[in-house]
Amino acid sequence: MANEDNLFKNVIAHAKEYGFIFPSSEIYDGLSAVYDYGQNGAELKNNIKEYWWKFMTLLHDNIVGIDAAIFMHPTTWKASGHVDAFNDPMIDNRDSKKRYRADQLIEGVIEKLEEKIEKEVEKAAKRFENFDRAMFVTTNARVVEYQKKIDEINARLKDAMGNGDMAAMKQLIDDLEITDPISGTRNWTDVRQFNLMFSTEIGSLADDANKIYLRPETAQGIFVNFLNVQKTGRMKIPFGIAQIGKAFRNEIVARQFIFRMREFEQMEMQFFVKPGEEMKWYEYWKAKRMKWHQTLGLGSDNYRYHDHLNLAHYANAACDIQFNFPMGFRELEGIHSRTDFDLKAHEKYSGKKLQYFDTEDNQSYIPYVVETSVGLDRMFLSVLSKSYVEEKLEDGSERVVLRIPAPLAPHKVAILPLTKKDGLPEKAEAIMNDLKYDLRCFYEEKDAIGKRYRRQDAIGTPYCVTVDHQTLEDDTVTIRDRDSMKQERVKIADVKAKLIDACSINNLLRKI
Amino acid sequence: MANEDNLFKNVIAHAKEYGFIFPSSEIYDGLSAVYDYGQNGAELKNNIKEYWWKFMTLLHDNIVGIDAAIFMHPTTWKASGHVDAFNDPMIDNRDSKKRYRADQLIEGVIEKLEEKIEKEVEKAAKRFENFDRAMFVTTNARVVEYQKKIDEINARLKDAMGNGDMAAMKQLIDDLEITDPISGTRNWTDVRQFNLMFSTEIGSLADDANKIYLRPETAQGIFVNFLNVQKTGRMKIPFGIAQIGKAFRNEIVARQFIFRMREFEQMEMQFFVKPGEEMKWYEYWKAKRMKWHQTLGLGSDNYRYHDHLNLAHYANAACDIQFNFPMGFRELEGIHSRTDFDLKAHEKYSGKKLQYFDTEDNQSYIPYVVETSVGLDRMFLSVLSKSYVEEKLEDGSERVVLRIPAPLAPHKVAILPLTKKDGLPEKAEAIMNDLKYDLRCFYEEKDAIGKRYRRQDAIGTPYCVTVDHQTLEDDTVTIRDRDSMKQERVKIADVKAKLIDACSINNLLRKI
Repeated sequence: MANEDNLFKNVIAHAKEYGFIFPSSEIYDGLSAVYDYGQNGAELKNNIKEYWWKFMTLLHDNIVGIDAAIFMHPTTWKASGHVDAFNDPMIDNRDSKKRYRADQLIEGVIEKLEEKIEKEVEKAAKRFENFDRAMFVTTNARVVEYQKKIDEINARLKDAMGNGDMAAMKQLIDDLEITDPISGTRNWTDVRQFNLMFSTEIGSLADDANKIYLRPETAQGIFVNFLNVQKTGRMKIPFGIAQIGKAFRNEIVARQFIFRMREFEQMEMQFFVKPGEEMKWYEYWKAKRMKWHQTLGLGSDNYRYHDHLNLAHYANAACDIQFNFPMGFRELEGIHSRTDFDLKAHEKYSGKKLQYFDTEDNQSYIPYVVETSVGLDRMFLSVLSKSYVEEKLEDGSERVVLRIPAPLAPHKVAILPLTKKDGLPEKAEAIMNDLKYDLRCFYEEKDAIGKRYRRQDAIGTPYCVTVDHQTLEDDTVTIRDRDSMKQERVKIADVKAKLIDACSINNLLRKI
Repeated sequence: MANEDNLFKNVIAHAKEYGFIFPSSEIYDGLSAVYDYGQNGAELKNNIKEYWWKFMTLLHDNIVGIDAAIFMHPTTWKASGHVDAFNDPMIDNRDSKKRYRADQLIEGVIEKLEEKIEKEVEKAAKRFENFDRAMFVTTNARVVEYQKKIDEINARLKDAMGNGDMAAMKQLIDDLEITDPISGTRNWTDVRQFNLMFSTEIGSLADDANKIYLRPETAQGIFVNFLNVQKTGRMKIPFGIAQIGKAFRNEIVARQFIFRMREFEQMEMQFFVKPGEEMKWYEYWKAKRMKWHQTLGLGSDNYRYHDHLNLAHYANAACDIQFNFPMGFRELEGIHSRTDFDLKAHEKYSGKKLQYFDTEDNQSYIPYVVETSVGLDRMFLSVLSKSYVEEKLEDGSERVVLRIPAPLAPHKVAILPLTKKDGLPEKAEAIMNDLKYDLRCFYEEKDAIGKRYRRQDAIGTPYCVTVDHQTLEDDTVTIRDRDSMKQERVKIADVKAKLIDACSINNLLRKI
């Protein structure tokens, strides 16, 4: 059995072994922070997309979906602020030749100080019966000292980041005497701003070329199309535009498997509202999106809100929905009240009016925007990691099972003839031909039935339909449930309706 | 009414006006040869994807789908031949500042000569009663002269292209005295090879950067994952791997709307077979893919095979399925017997064995590959352009209707209360709530019913359900058929099953 520390490693190994996720270009030893979805991963990913897209566009008749290109006019990214400000501060250690994000090195120092405070708190809590944490942390000399240091570092970091002052950042690293965890030295380069956008050149002549970017977010594809969609779709405010698509960020340090990749996929919705009504809709979407996540059944405790204390320049309210990933609670989805920042900026840079004429008020205005933005790959990781269970069975054996919610499972049902003869495969095939249009089926006739069940457990197939000799007599089959491992015998004629009922994404949507 | 020449223009205008396709970043005056799919386009595109994906992966239990990243290890493109040979010859005119593909300029001369031959043939055919074309073209002095010239140009062009001899290409342009259609001059630059791959840099330091490419085709993502999928999926030859995804080509001259874009999407399947059996499977997939297209119901005459006479270096047989686009018959899908070229090359460059162990023959081999490759955007254009009809109605009025096959239509049904009062909207909403999980619904209560029908015609909605005063009395509604414009009155309880039957992609698949 895996302990908590090993869980993430085991999930990653399982994802590869069972065709969910392969390192990109693995035969060439991979490409850093890029992954491919294998035969089971692609289906799981498609099902997550469908669950999101249908919820957004089928269940809200004021939300429509679009599919904008990855390539956009470069001025888009000037207007959005990405050309000037989508930077991370980076620094290299000359001895280890390793690269770091300067802000993360500094935050590491803060984290250590916070750990020290926690230790003092724990020690004191053991000593005093009626321990009052608030009182303690404001009066204990050592803790006060640590907190003062933290506040000072935070203030200098915020200042340096806010002003883009890389020299001040370097000074802070020097003052804190930060050493490279690998080389142990302080032989640092200067801190430099590094823009996270990938660029390429469109057109065919170097000196005449247009530098364009791979979009670092899908949101701008919605903003530049705002009026096109509103007018051609005759949309009335409030209304939303949804989109699923790839985005690209040249992360300095990309890590944690598919949690932070250089090529990733977003599921974003921009909801356009009347100025002044954004807080109402912000609260609405916070609740709706949480409900959407929790309806999956991975455990409501695994989700929590995390309000942003430092708001981005475009937001007047923002929070994350965090998920309990193997490495702890991390952002899964962001909900942001983006004000009119983006549309206003595009008006300014394009010289085109991006206003909505409100027939009720008889006035034009730039709408405010509430955004919901899920990382599709993170969503995938949340489902995969929480579904992964190593179980000790009653007979002492072990099994690995992916308890993927049935509507998201790559295959809904495995059709398994008990043996390869006596006409059982033919019977199984007939059943499959009846089911396959409505339920993704897996067919397998090789190996003992127990072994086949285990393989289906490992790829998360919720049901196994076994065709045995009794089937030939009375037209019944057994349906084995992945999670309980219980089997029940049902009439072939009832199989389809029963399984569709349990596996349908539409039924899941009805519960939201 | 549009004549043939205007049809394409009208389709393009209609696509924009009704939210199917917008120029990318239009507020910034667009980005050349890049387009965004609007609210109706995104749904049509999704439905095409579903029709393809389900046909490939649900209806063939030996085909699985994957989703590989756009970024791949750069050696991939060395092995595939794209770094060295994915070039087009380009030339600039110094006066007009326009750029051309050198081979297309030369082919233009050939086309003109062919037109001259045709004119001679036509003239002669009118003059002689028992006109024998074959005899005429081999004996008429003028025609023989033209044909000799054509053969000579063709031979020199083929030579120059084959050897990558750009100087010979330039010489040919000079010898043919080709002038720029805009400036009218022969003030040409040299002919240069131009690689069509977009490149970018991954990692964060310029002097340490890795140049990578945006994939120019999705096929290689399948080849590099061949063994991962085969082993983790326990696949037995013959088997296929399917994929839908973006690809990018920096075309020198991109044109014809979404027919040739710089960012586009492919639906590709690579079928791995035993060497020697590839021709059997090549024929199998030619027939299957044609059937898939024709089952859509856009008219079987609009498809034809076009065998490749000049085979690509990797192929031992290849053909296109051509579609009758507004600009004539053009490639819609390619079916290629790719031999073991790709897997062999990846073995060589990666040093990894890419062989399949055949348990029946007890031997290992590199499989042969039969590929089917559809351009998703071309598929979209084929559906959109062939569905677009301008009709003169009996009452003398005109309508534009998109006769999109119902299973592909962006919305399956519009729910229209006849008036905004008397409880009709509430009744309509109740019907919609029952239908919306299974059928994409459009709701509209504004404007006269006739006007609303026209708007649904224009976006291709196959059915309109109208809720009127009789509905309140006997729980019936009218269903209006988009194509016949006929209405029938049916019980509300029967609407859902009736419409699902007509609009389901699964039902379409059952016909193949």
